[in-house]
Amino acid sequence: MSEQPRLVQVRQRVLKRNDVAAGMLRERFQEAGTFVVSLVSSPGAGKTAFLERVLRGLNGPFRVGAFVGDLATDNDARRLARSGAPVKQIVTGTVCHLDADMVTSALEGWRLDDFDFLFLENVGNLVCPASFDLGEALRLVLFSVTEGEDKPLKYPTIFNTADVAVVTKTDMAAAADFDARLAYQSIQAVRPGMEIFEASAKTGEGVGEFLEFLRERRSASRTEASGGALQST
Amino acid sequence: MSEQPRLVQVRQRVLKRNDVAAGMLRERFQEAGTFVVSLVSSPGAGKTAFLERVLRGLNGPFRVGAFVGDLATDNDARRLARSGAPVKQIVTGTVCHLDADMVTSALEGWRLDDFDFLFLENVGNLVCPASFDLGEALRLVLFSVTEGEDKPLKYPTIFNTADVAVVTKTDMAAAADFDARLAYQSIQAVRPGMEIFEASAKTGEGVGEFLEFLRERRSASRTEASGGALQST
Repeated sequence: MSEQPRLVQVRQRVLKRNDVAAGMLRERFQEAGTFVVSLVSSPGAGKTAFLERVLRGLNGPFRVGAFVGDLATDNDARRLARSGAPVKQIVTGTVCHLDADMVTSALEGWRLDDFDFLFLENVGNLVCPASFDLGEALRLVLFSVTEGEDKPLKYPTIFNTADVAVVTKTDMAAAADFDARLAYQSIQAVRPGMEIFEASAKTGEGVGEFLEFLRERRSASRTEASGGALQST
Repeated sequence: MSEQPRLVQVRQRVLKRNDVAAGMLRERFQEAGTFVVSLVSSPGAGKTAFLERVLRGLNGPFRVGAFVGDLATDNDARRLARSGAPVKQIVTGTVCHLDADMVTSALEGWRLDDFDFLFLENVGNLVCPASFDLGEALRLVLFSVTEGEDKPLKYPTIFNTADVAVVTKTDMAAAADFDARLAYQSIQAVRPGMEIFEASAKTGEGVGEFLEFLRERRSASRTEASGGALQST
């Protein structure tokens, strides 16, 4: 198709613009001291159920909020709001991912200073979200025990752009004949050294370890921000 | 973003070109008497396991073949080839769907006359494949019991462009607390009247009914093709 190279050119310009908008978001997040975590996965990997647990676990000791992207419905925002945290739905229409402009618009009316953590749940998709920086400090890829252990090999880019992985729905591992060793091998093959957590949003198992990790990462980012200033003197 | 409308324009031209190529494929399939079925779903919904069952069930009485699309690896082609049917992997790189040109290229070296059924397993994605006609006679959307009953509401377009739905992994329905009534409601809300099958590729339950449906659909399409000629005299 002779149109394909033009599509690629225009898409590259869109990505470049997105990078600029994401860079501005990242600065705003850092200035406000808001630790921003995005979540990507295939549809149905359990992002919303896991995030609901995370919001419940952090809400109180921390000030937390979330944006959630879907092509249609505000089902997920309503589910997440049960945690007590403020949540906003971003409806993307036919667009298969969030972008930095959507996040910027969603921030209108919110004071970033009011949030220690902000979570960005992307549209369920293992391809499109990979290229769009949202200004997040941490990108989390979720991967359920029912999806097939070779998923990381088949969608290497999204695993490569993520910082940490969570294997979800571990309560169904036996029913799904999940081979953890094989799944870990697949993740390490495309993203050597990536830290991997396991969790069940149904039973709550493993969620505590991940919360601890998030708290540490946020502290480290704040120490780094102030330490960086000291070191540069 | 001011680039977005241009992206949409270029994408529409790409879609128009795809429609032309898909129309040519459809003619070739009809002339050869090959009944072509495409499969779409989220990653990990069980397309490959289900298709392996279908190929095994049809191979022998019918001459069957399959193309399978993935961003990377030929894992799925190797799995499907265990059925004994000829299978070709289409590696799409960063592209989140098959298109008509990819199918046309994959057909090189194959004689369509040699096939009663040809299956096109799309890349696992609930967004991108929706807009790309592949010349298929039947589009099948799969949806596993572990994905969440509201998936059709959140991805209405892909369900709307499909002809028939298969609920997969029914052996895990209890472990996943699957609410069949709710799932059926979601499907009917976005695609009223769509026929729905249930199957477990693990136990084989329900696969027979779907095979019977495919055989009937193929017969009907052939009767229609010759009956149409008679009626027009």
